[in-house]
Amino acid sequence: MAEPKVILVVGAGDATGGAIARRFAREGYIACVTRRSADKLAPLVERIRAEGGVSHAFGSDARDEDAMVALVETIERDIGPIEVAVFNIGANVRFGITETTARVYRKVWEMACFAGFLMGREAAKVMLPRGRGTIIFTGATASLRGREGFSAFAGAKHALRALAQSMARELWPRNIHVAHTIIDGAIDTEWIRSNFPERYAQKDRQGIVDPDSIAEAYWQIHRQPRDAWSHETELRPWMENW
Amino acid sequence: MAEPKVILVVGAGDATGGAIARRFAREGYIACVTRRSADKLAPLVERIRAEGGVSHAFGSDARDEDAMVALVETIERDIGPIEVAVFNIGANVRFGITETTARVYRKVWEMACFAGFLMGREAAKVMLPRGRGTIIFTGATASLRGREGFSAFAGAKHALRALAQSMARELWPRNIHVAHTIIDGAIDTEWIRSNFPERYAQKDRQGIVDPDSIAEAYWQIHRQPRDAWSHETELRPWMENW
Amino acid sequence: MAEPKVILVVGAGDATGGAIARRFAREGYIACVTRRSADKLAPLVERIRAEGGVSHAFGSDARDEDAMVALVETIERDIGPIEVAVFNIGANVRFGITETTARVYRKVWEMACFAGFLMGREAAKVMLPRGRGTIIFTGATASLRGREGFSAFAGAKHALRALAQSMARELWPRNIHVAHTIIDGAIDTEWIRSNFPERYAQKDRQGIVDPDSIAEAYWQIHRQPRDAWSHETELRPWMENW
Amino acid sequence: MAEPKVILVVGAGDATGGAIARRFAREGYIACVTRRSADKLAPLVERIRAEGGVSHAFGSDARDEDAMVALVETIERDIGPIEVAVFNIGANVRFGITETTARVYRKVWEMACFAGFLMGREAAKVMLPRGRGTIIFTGATASLRGREGFSAFAGAKHALRALAQSMARELWPRNIHVAHTIIDGAIDTEWIRSNFPERYAQKDRQGIVDPDSIAEAYWQIHRQPRDAWSHETELRPWMENW
Repeated sequence: MAEPKVILVVGAGDATGGAIARRFAREGYIACVTRRSADKLAPLVERIRAEGGVSHAFGSDARDEDAMVALVETIERDIGPIEVAVFNIGANVRFGITETTARVYRKVWEMACFAGFLMGREAAKVMLPRGRGTIIFTGATASLRGREGFSAFAGAKHALRALAQSMARELWPRNIHVAHTIIDGAIDTEWIRSNFPERYAQKDRQGIVDPDSIAEAYWQIHRQPRDAWSHETELRPWMENW
Repeated sequence: MAEPKVILVVGAGDATGGAIARRFAREGYIACVTRRSADKLAPLVERIRAEGGVSHAFGSDARDEDAMVALVETIERDIGPIEVAVFNIGANVRFGITETTARVYRKVWEMACFAGFLMGREAAKVMLPRGRGTIIFTGATASLRGREGFSAFAGAKHALRALAQSMARELWPRNIHVAHTIIDGAIDTEWIRSNFPERYAQKDRQGIVDPDSIAEAYWQIHRQPRDAWSHETELRPWMENW
Repeated sequence: MAEPKVILVVGAGDATGGAIARRFAREGYIACVTRRSADKLAPLVERIRAEGGVSHAFGSDARDEDAMVALVETIERDIGPIEVAVFNIGANVRFGITETTARVYRKVWEMACFAGFLMGREAAKVMLPRGRGTIIFTGATASLRGREGFSAFAGAKHALRALAQSMARELWPRNIHVAHTIIDGAIDTEWIRSNFPERYAQKDRQGIVDPDSIAEAYWQIHRQPRDAWSHETELRPWMENW
Repeated sequence: MAEPKVILVVGAGDATGGAIARRFAREGYIACVTRRSADKLAPLVERIRAEGGVSHAFGSDARDEDAMVALVETIERDIGPIEVAVFNIGANVRFGITETTARVYRKVWEMACFAGFLMGREAAKVMLPRGRGTIIFTGATASLRGREGFSAFAGAKHALRALAQSMARELWPRNIHVAHTIIDGAIDTEWIRSNFPERYAQKDRQGIVDPDSIAEAYWQIHRQPRDAWSHETELRPWMENW
C-alpha cells in the first residue's frame, strides 16, 4: 500500500481553502483542514468524502503557538507526513489610519501573518529531515502595495510575503518548494455576493475568481519539477483593472 | 473534422522554442516555427512529426516588418488560425558601457524587443476579430533589473516586458491572454554546455532549467481559465541563488 | 517670537536618530527624542544644546499604546506642535526559520513595525487638524526583499513600508508628507565597528553610510515643495554591491 | 581662477531641461544645452545669461552617434570638463497596439532610449579617466509599468531605466554617480496647458510639477555625498493619485 500523503490547509473556512483541499484530495492527498471551529468544517469534510477523498477537520487557533505545534505533531503521528502545507487565512479590514485601533492592527497581523509564520515554521521542521515538501502562502493585491485604509491588512500581507521570500531563499536549496500567490481580484465567496452584488454579477462572464481555479493553480505549483519552480504566482480575472 | 489550431513560435532556434512547439503539437496544435534560416529547423519539424504532430518551418527575419506581416498572413491563409503566439528570441550579450557599440545596442533591441513588438502586433490583429488567443513573451532575469555589462540586453528585455504589460492591459478585456515569463537561471542548451561546464554539471541535480519544463509552464498558462489568468510567471531551479 | 516647531524622533538611541535630531535642531526645530531609557539620551541632548539647539529627552516604550498617546499629548501641550515625526527603531536579528522563536518574531514586529504604526497614527491625529506635517519612516534593504534568516526582520520592515504607503495615499492629499527611506548599506555605528571590522574599515573611503548624510536626506525630504514630493528615497554607499 | 565645470543637458527643449540648466548655472556650472534646432534655445541661453550664468546652445540630433560623439568632444575641448550629464528627451505618444506603426515604435525608442545610451556612454568615456561625475536620466511613470496605449513609450522608458541601472552598477564603484528619476505627474508645460486645461488648473494648488522643483531635486542628487547616494528618485505632486 502506498504511503499516505497529507496536505494541511490552515484556514479552510472560506471557499478558497476548501477548494484547495478538495483538489489535492482528488489526487490522493489526505486533506487535513483547519479553522477556529471544527464544527463548521463538517460540510467540507463530507463533500471531500463524497468525492472519494479522505479528509480530517481540526478546530485550531492558528495564532496560538502551542496549538500549531500540537496540530502538526498530531497529524504527523496519527495521519501521515505533511507533504504540502497551505496558509490561507486573510483578515481584510479597511479603516482610515486614525480609526485603526491598536487592537485591530495587532489582530490582523496575528491572523494574516503571525499564524502563517507558525505554520511555515512547523511545516519546515517536519519537512527538512525528509528533504522534500511544498509550502504555499496565499497573498493578495495588498501584498504588493499599501493603499488608503489598508495599513493593517497590507502590513500583514507584506510581512507574509517577506516570510515566504525568506523561507524560499533558505529552503529551496533543501528541496522544499516555498511559494506565494497574489490573488488580484474578487473571489467567488458569500462575502462578495452579499457585499458587492454588482461585482458578483460579473460571475457569469468569469469576472470574479473561481476558487477551483485557484486550487488548480496550487496543484500546478506543487507538481512543478524542481528545475523550474515558481516562487510567486499572480492570478486575476481577464476583466480586472490592474 | 475539428478546425485546425496553430501555435506560432517565433525564435525556435534554441532548445526552448523547440520544446514549446513540441509540447503544443502534442496537444494537437499545428506548430509553425520560425528562425532566420528555415534549413536549421528541419530536425525540429521531423521530431514533431515523429511524435505524431504537425509542424511547418518558416525562414523569416523577425526584425523585418514586411516579413512578419507576410508570415502571419501566410499561416492564417494556408494553415489555420493562430491561437497561440510565442516570442522567444533572445540576444544575450555582455559588454561594459564604454565597449557597447551603437550597432550592438541597436541590434540587441531589434532582435529581443522590436521583433517581439512586430509579432505581438500582428498576432493581436488576427486574434482581435476572433475575440480569443494567447500571446506569450519569454523574459529573463534581465527583464527585471539592469546589471553591469547588460545595458543592451537588459534594455531590450525591459522594453519587451513593458510591451507585454501594455498589451495585456489593452487585450485581456478583449479575451486575449497576454503573458510574460521570467526564466531566472541557466537553460539546458548547447551554449551553456560549452561555455559554463561547471554550471552544466548541475544538470544531474536539476540545477539548470529543462526546456521541457518551460514548455509545460507555457502550456499551463495557455490553459488557465479566464477567471484566473497569470500575467507574469517566473521559473528558476531550486538551487538557484536569487 | 516665532511659533515653536517640534521634530519628534522615536528611536534616537542610535547614531541615525541622533543625527536627524541634530540636523533639524540646527534649523530651529525643537528636537524631542525618545528611547526606552531617557538617561541614555543625555549626551545627545547636551550635544544639541552645545550646538545652539533645543532638545528634550523622553524615556518611552514605543510599543506601548498608552505611552505613545501620552508622549504626543505631552509634547503638543507643553512644547509645541509636532511638524515632523520620524520613526527610526530597527530590530535587526538573523535566525534560520526553524530557530526563530515566536517570541522573537513577535518582538521584532512590535519594535520595528507596531511602534511605527502607533507613532504614525498619533502624529497623523495632531497633524490632520493643522493640515500640514511630515512623517518619515526609516527602512532598510529588508523592506524590499526577504532573505535567508530574515523572516522576522524583513517581515517587520515590509509591514512598515506598507504602513508608509497606506498612510501616504491617505494623507498626502491632506497635505501631510509621508515618506519612507531605504538605507541600503552599513551605517557608521558602534555595532558595525564591533561586529564587522573589515566593513568598518571602508569608512575612510566613504564605504559605509554616515548618519549625518541620512540626516541631510531627511531634511531635504522635509523641505521638498509639495508639487514634487518623494515617497521613497534610497541611500547607499557608492561602493555597495546591489 | 577656478577650473570651469560643465553640465550637459541633452534635451533642453522643454521646461524641465531648461530649469535644470538654469539651476546648475546658478551654482557656477557652464550650461551646455542641446536640442534638434539650436535657434530655439536662444531664449534659454539669454535667460541664463541674464541670471548671471554662462550657457552654450548646441543644435544636435541626439540619436545620431557621430553627432553625439562630436558634441561631447567639442565641449570637452573648447569649454570644459563635463561634470554632470542629464538626459531629458521624452517622446510621449499613445496608440493602441494595432495602431502603433513600426516607424513610431522605433522612433520613440531612438529618441527616448537610444539617444540616452549614446549620451550616457560618451559621458562615461570622459568621466572615467577623471574618476568622477554625475549622470542623470529623466524617467516617468511609464518607466515602471506598461499601460494600454503605451507599448512604445513605456518600452523606451523601461529600457532607459535598465540602462541607468546597468550603468550605475558598473560606474558607481568608479565614483560616477548614475541616477534615474521618476516624474510621476503632469509637469507645468505649454503642452499640458493646451491639452489638459482642467489638469493645468490645479497649478494654483501645486497640483502639477514645477520644473524648478525637478531642477532642485537634480541639484540635490548631484551634491549627495558618496556614502549616501540615491539611484532612483521619484517626484509627484501631493494631490496625485498613485
